[in-house]
Amino acid sequence: MSDLSDNIPVNIGLLGLGVVGGGVAAALLEQPEDISAQTGRPVNLKKVLVRDAARPRDVQLPDGLITTNPEDILADPDISLVVEVIGGESPAAQYLQDALKAGKHVVTANKEVMAKRGPELLSLAQRHNVNLLYEASVGGGIPIIGCLVKELAANRFRSVRSIINGTTNYILTRMANDHTGFALALSEAQEQGYAEADPTNDIEGYDAVYKLSILAGLAFHRRVPPESIHREGITRLQPQDFRYAHELGYAIKSLAIATMEEGGIQARVYPALVPQDNMLAKVDGVYNAVEVEGSLCGRVLIHGRGAGRGPTTSAVVGDLIEIARNLGAGSTPLPSITPEDAGGIRSIDDLECQYFLRLNIADRPGVLAQIARILGEQNISIASVLQKDANPEAQTAEIVITTHPARELWVQKALELAANLEVVQEINSLLRIED
Amino acid sequence: MSDLSDNIPVNIGLLGLGVVGGGVAAALLEQPEDISAQTGRPVNLKKVLVRDAARPRDVQLPDGLITTNPEDILADPDISLVVEVIGGESPAAQYLQDALKAGKHVVTANKEVMAKRGPELLSLAQRHNVNLLYEASVGGGIPIIGCLVKELAANRFRSVRSIINGTTNYILTRMANDHTGFALALSEAQEQGYAEADPTNDIEGYDAVYKLSILAGLAFHRRVPPESIHREGITRLQPQDFRYAHELGYAIKSLAIATMEEGGIQARVYPALVPQDNMLAKVDGVYNAVEVEGSLCGRVLIHGRGAGRGPTTSAVVGDLIEIARNLGAGSTPLPSITPEDAGGIRSIDDLECQYFLRLNIADRPGVLAQIARILGEQNISIASVLQKDANPEAQTAEIVITTHPARELWVQKALELAANLEVVQEINSLLRIED
Repeated sequence: MSDLSDNIPVNIGLLGLGVVGGGVAAALLEQPEDISAQTGRPVNLKKVLVRDAARPRDVQLPDGLITTNPEDILADPDISLVVEVIGGESPAAQYLQDALKAGKHVVTANKEVMAKRGPELLSLAQRHNVNLLYEASVGGGIPIIGCLVKELAANRFRSVRSIINGTTNYILTRMANDHTGFALALSEAQEQGYAEADPTNDIEGYDAVYKLSILAGLAFHRRVPPESIHREGITRLQPQDFRYAHELGYAIKSLAIATMEEGGIQARVYPALVPQDNMLAKVDGVYNAVEVEGSLCGRVLIHGRGAGRGPTTSAVVGDLIEIARNLGAGSTPLPSITPEDAGGIRSIDDLECQYFLRLNIADRPGVLAQIARILGEQNISIASVLQKDANPEAQTAEIVITTHPARELWVQKALELAANLEVVQEINSLLRIED
Repeated sequence: MSDLSDNIPVNIGLLGLGVVGGGVAAALLEQPEDISAQTGRPVNLKKVLVRDAARPRDVQLPDGLITTNPEDILADPDISLVVEVIGGESPAAQYLQDALKAGKHVVTANKEVMAKRGPELLSLAQRHNVNLLYEASVGGGIPIIGCLVKELAANRFRSVRSIINGTTNYILTRMANDHTGFALALSEAQEQGYAEADPTNDIEGYDAVYKLSILAGLAFHRRVPPESIHREGITRLQPQDFRYAHELGYAIKSLAIATMEEGGIQARVYPALVPQDNMLAKVDGVYNAVEVEGSLCGRVLIHGRGAGRGPTTSAVVGDLIEIARNLGAGSTPLPSITPEDAGGIRSIDDLECQYFLRLNIADRPGVLAQIARILGEQNISIASVLQKDANPEAQTAEIVITTHPARELWVQKALELAANLEVVQEINSLLRIED
């Protein structure tokens, strides 16, 4: 508990009153003494921006709190802290910019804005001597941003490996445990409220790309723009991928990974095989986890709920408490990391790892030899081969090949050549093995 | 990065140059620019206290840094930050007190001192307007203290459940995976350097009690003295406990748990059964994990290395960076929690949970009925019974009983009565099931 001599109240303007906004408003209105006890000064919710003032909501707000005019918050000199939980790039980014320029501290849960324009907004905050905190933008209740900036600040980081999209992890967990197909698992996730009506952002990996962009920027102090991150969705996975992976001792998870390599940062979002005894393989359902590897701490993993009202509110109010604690005469700025534009992002072509390949082939002698020759010519050495599901009528079979570490470019090249073989019906899967 | 206008250097006095002290000294001497970049001001290691100046060490210190006189640090007005990594209660506690009274900030890795005298030292720090940080005292590289104080500050906590002793977790992992007996697993841990020559502190749970005392104080803002924590070691576990637990779907882990119950805080350290799909069941070897359950964030688990030079140095230097960032004119005190002496610690007698009981009995009809009657009379209802390892020669058998939730006092009473039955040879195990 701080024992501050000043007692300046902190007036808060809240932008957005959706699921998370409702949680934040409830936390501020229902137990203000809990928060004041932590901040050492009163914290008041002064104004809440909504799009439609008439819409019924589950949180009861005192009269006069609601407005539909952003200027009632952004231009009010009594409001010293703006909390943004609207989401999406526009108009949120403009509001954040205006708030910072007006000398207001900002807490945001907006991954898209922080991924696309974070470095610029953090510089703006620094120039105006205010704080911009964004713990809620990645991993909901998982306090990874604070840990990278503060508790683990003594480390140089080698990697960030994470499961940061609960929707895809729910779908993949269903597919793995119940041998469900993708479409059924998705529609169940939608019924449960874990996937949106238009699930593109989640299942195609855009959401995870934004979050990884933010985490990699913090871990490496370098700008890793979303468009520099290799992205693959989970829509092409089939039940047999899970079956074969399991047989080989792996789980399949949609991972968001950034590693510091000699030639620069390698960042990618894709479904990959993870050894079953790895902690990331054990992250199930809508849970998220982020594992960082630091020069001193080694591997530290944080596991928790990545989304939803409670966890996101926890992160937003945590940031808000930190700023409110630190307000007052002569306070030092809170620590932050402004990633620098240093280039050095590696192409996915340069990735080197083990691969899991699944192909449909003609079930006759000599086919494997042809495929093995093509792989060998691209310098890819085979670690294991499973031949499966022979279909005697169609005279086809399925083979699963795992490789020793190989370069992505050569693997892609080999598969292109293999696809042209008369005996190869289809290349079903190319998945990386991450361990 | 802070852009502080002042540039006051921070002179550090280091108390202790063992494994962790060596790591801290190396971090300060080998990459000072890494640390200065984070703190915004130079950080100098000015003096290092050792017991024996002549002893050879693996860290190279510049001339004149070493002293054997604590006053060279505690009475030096140029030293603003004291780092204590001696360990043990005496003389460390006295040094900490002297440093705080002299107006110096303190970073300590000392679990024993913080568990026994933390509240008193934190109040002393507050009175002298300095910071006392102790992230390294619990969980090494796991940033749980910072998270409880800062990132997760918006939550009221319901429970702390943790594996916070790497030595016992290594031993239990060996016993579970390889059906090793306790003595062999211990001697292996000693060979590997994971257990000390005198392993009492670890295997009897004292180490975990200190750490749990600190964590419970932070989670509940209430003083939970080490002597109020129920403690059981792992020395009586036998290979068959692991085998039966596994058959029933559980792992056995030495847990340190504190829960906020209606009648107060229930805190205990003991080996317990954990469902195999629980994340804590998956924490293996020397790894540690702490799971807290908060009102907003839900369950958040942090997994990492709980001890050793690197992880502990990460925590110490992280604290040191935080204090150094915050130094300077008009800085606000760093957030801390001073647990209050509010009483309300519940006795283990009041614990209510499921139990796992293993007994050696005479292998003849009607024995189970006698035991079941005794349990029933104490209001304990049986969930499952396994009869095992019948020994036809001795005419004995082993039974494993799991119960529905029952009160500890009645379970103890029932076992006392059962032990007096002529047909009961021995009560081998009483373990709690924690899920």
